[in-house]
Amino acid sequence: MTQPLPLHHGIFGRLRRDTGEAWERFIRHPFVLGIGDATLPQPAFQHYLKQDYLFLIQFARAHALAGYKSTDLAGLRAAAAAVTAIVDTEMPLHISYCAGWGLTEAQMQAEPEDMETIAYTRFVLERGLAGDGLDLDAALIPCLVGYAEVVERLLADPATRQEGNPYAAWMAAYASDDYRAAAAAAIESLDRQFALRGSEARYPDLLATFTAATRLEEAFWEMGWRRRA
Amino acid sequence: MTQPLPLHHGIFGRLRRDTGEAWERFIRHPFVLGIGDATLPQPAFQHYLKQDYLFLIQFARAHALAGYKSTDLAGLRAAAAAVTAIVDTEMPLHISYCAGWGLTEAQMQAEPEDMETIAYTRFVLERGLAGDGLDLDAALIPCLVGYAEVVERLLADPATRQEGNPYAAWMAAYASDDYRAAAAAAIESLDRQFALRGSEARYPDLLATFTAATRLEEAFWEMGWRRRA
Amino acid sequence: MTQPLPLHHGIFGRLRRDTGEAWERFIRHPFVLGIGDATLPQPAFQHYLKQDYLFLIQFARAHALAGYKSTDLAGLRAAAAAVTAIVDTEMPLHISYCAGWGLTEAQMQAEPEDMETIAYTRFVLERGLAGDGLDLDAALIPCLVGYAEVVERLLADPATRQEGNPYAAWMAAYASDDYRAAAAAAIESLDRQFALRGSEARYPDLLATFTAATRLEEAFWEMGWRRRA
Amino acid sequence: MTQPLPLHHGIFGRLRRDTGEAWERFIRHPFVLGIGDATLPQPAFQHYLKQDYLFLIQFARAHALAGYKSTDLAGLRAAAAAVTAIVDTEMPLHISYCAGWGLTEAQMQAEPEDMETIAYTRFVLERGLAGDGLDLDAALIPCLVGYAEVVERLLADPATRQEGNPYAAWMAAYASDDYRAAAAAAIESLDRQFALRGSEARYPDLLATFTAATRLEEAFWEMGWRRRA
Repeated sequence: MTQPLPLHHGIFGRLRRDTGEAWERFIRHPFVLGIGDATLPQPAFQHYLKQDYLFLIQFARAHALAGYKSTDLAGLRAAAAAVTAIVDTEMPLHISYCAGWGLTEAQMQAEPEDMETIAYTRFVLERGLAGDGLDLDAALIPCLVGYAEVVERLLADPATRQEGNPYAAWMAAYASDDYRAAAAAAIESLDRQFALRGSEARYPDLLATFTAATRLEEAFWEMGWRRRA
Repeated sequence: MTQPLPLHHGIFGRLRRDTGEAWERFIRHPFVLGIGDATLPQPAFQHYLKQDYLFLIQFARAHALAGYKSTDLAGLRAAAAAVTAIVDTEMPLHISYCAGWGLTEAQMQAEPEDMETIAYTRFVLERGLAGDGLDLDAALIPCLVGYAEVVERLLADPATRQEGNPYAAWMAAYASDDYRAAAAAAIESLDRQFALRGSEARYPDLLATFTAATRLEEAFWEMGWRRRA
Repeated sequence: MTQPLPLHHGIFGRLRRDTGEAWERFIRHPFVLGIGDATLPQPAFQHYLKQDYLFLIQFARAHALAGYKSTDLAGLRAAAAAVTAIVDTEMPLHISYCAGWGLTEAQMQAEPEDMETIAYTRFVLERGLAGDGLDLDAALIPCLVGYAEVVERLLADPATRQEGNPYAAWMAAYASDDYRAAAAAAIESLDRQFALRGSEARYPDLLATFTAATRLEEAFWEMGWRRRA
Repeated sequence: MTQPLPLHHGIFGRLRRDTGEAWERFIRHPFVLGIGDATLPQPAFQHYLKQDYLFLIQFARAHALAGYKSTDLAGLRAAAAAVTAIVDTEMPLHISYCAGWGLTEAQMQAEPEDMETIAYTRFVLERGLAGDGLDLDAALIPCLVGYAEVVERLLADPATRQEGNPYAAWMAAYASDDYRAAAAAAIESLDRQFALRGSEARYPDLLATFTAATRLEEAFWEMGWRRRA
């Protein structure tokens, strides 16, 4: 997929634009720039990655919840595929990085969850349980699309180093055709959900959910960033 | 409250009208007419009442769920009041009838749930869990308002007997000011919820929920009616 | 998998035994025997299959819910695999049967749900939402293993016809290695869940759930069986 | 109720003891001691109280959820009473404090939730949704009983000032007979729930929930404490 991500498309584009500064702080966080130019200290990345492993368990549960919340087969299929992608593709990347540092998967699972990890994951899950599938989608999409945008920008940035960058495999994962296709599909799917169950009256509430999730993403980078020294 | 119920008001009025025949079959079921003119055989009423006791436990849970699903204090207050009304007013009526027949509350709780009871209660609960508070309200309201309408009609019907009618206490409960006020408040509340989270696009889905609940109410009377002989 | 199903194994074996008559009525229902000896009238099977298509949508949602309810990766993987098996293997069988009768998938989706379908599916889903993953497993397993047992018995029964039996493809699906392996895995998994979260004190409640689901299975066959004439 | 709280009783006593240092850090946090001796700077208390107002909305939802999760009338009644106590007794105290500082209830509701508030409340709610009523109780009880213990200790501490202490009304609320009776009832109720659905095998998981909630309580005081200067 060499096409740019449809970041300005439909309801996602509107939510992203209306979230404003918070979206930019998420996408251009120093942690991210440090990944691109390889200046991010390893302890910061390690801490992030261990927490992100715990995050992904909860995020896979959130996609399973989206399967429960869907009423058509397309939604059920997409949810099962998302769970499988997280468990069988995204998490093995984390495990392989951690193995390179002498950390086993059992150790990663035993790591205590940081406040930021708890806040973000339980916010998303609870939003989906209290509301409907559209509320859940609005909580899930900043992470899903944001990671694709983060890496799209990094790869277009002359400051980004590929050679000798220890974080190159991480960037490659979120630049993969599969990941970008999933992000684009989520953007399309949000439009369909909004057409079915959304309204102008619901928009402020969906924006509050989207913005809260975006801030929790920013806080998640920050959690890693604080460990840089 | 001597004012008539606002049955044609707002979104409830629209759902009731669009449910059409199914609503009429629920409201004018022979079981109901037999309560009014005191011709309903006692075994039919007894069976209904025992199942309705089990139903009310689940319905109180559904109102508690509505409390969880609400995001403002008014919704939480209304839910707590509804649970209390069911548990402390409506269920004691059932217990008192059953006591008159030599049936203890423990025996009522041990009664197996009929298919109709399972279908209706779990449908409502699951609709509320899968969807949002508006979906739950659309599933709850046919019962809540329908009982008030049933008794309003009976009391206006010359065929209805009050004196010597063994079911007079049952009618009185759903003709009480408190019950009618709760029904009227639910009609108002549905309008507010629809304004916040509804849309024309969601209407067919809400109508499907409302109609399914109405049919399950009709089936609930039918379950009692079958025991008349 | 030529090994017999581990029907007497562990907690499943105990629940199955303690459910007693209700389990036998589910497994040896005349509807099932009519499938085996090809005497089941087509209208009965058609009605069943259309309702079972609707059932499977809800059952796939229930497996997605089990994914949400799991806290380890094995549970998430199993749930995603179960959803995929239902949506991509089991449902296409139904669609193909119905296509042979001139019925499109859109028509199947538009079919109204029978009381039995509503009762069973919403009971399972709600049990899982109100309780924990073990409660959900106890509600899911009678269907999953029961179908494998039904067909295992039919195929061992001399009265069963394979040649010229219009229901042979249906039997083959639930006799497949994949299906039987999934049933055996569910029996093993229930033991692990019970070891983690079960207890003797919980057993009566789990048995009540298992027995209720078994009775709802029997009622589901009965729903088809009533349409035989 | 002049009797001491039954802090060492039953399963609560065991969880509290096994949580160890984390429980002590929650109960004896400098924020709390500053309330007792009136040295806590007002900005710290104000920030805490505004966040606690938002917390209580979610906590009332959590008690409503406990009502949904209960299967007997006692549980439903207790849940409705808890919601009412939060909404009609505990929150008005916050509103009255804030009114004294010129802050309206609308302003309190518009306050953004801090990370600590999101993490704690969504953790509790999600724990209850993913697990059963016992999991939810284990997540709810540290707050409910902890507040009673905090104030019991303060009132027994010679360093505590009552006269001229601006936080005296806050202490009085959690020293009230009603609040202490609710805390004692929760301790009793946890024993009953554990007897019904608990087991030694579940204990580590329940302890993890209880300990996580305790740490999130400590972080909640810390959130206020950081604003003291």
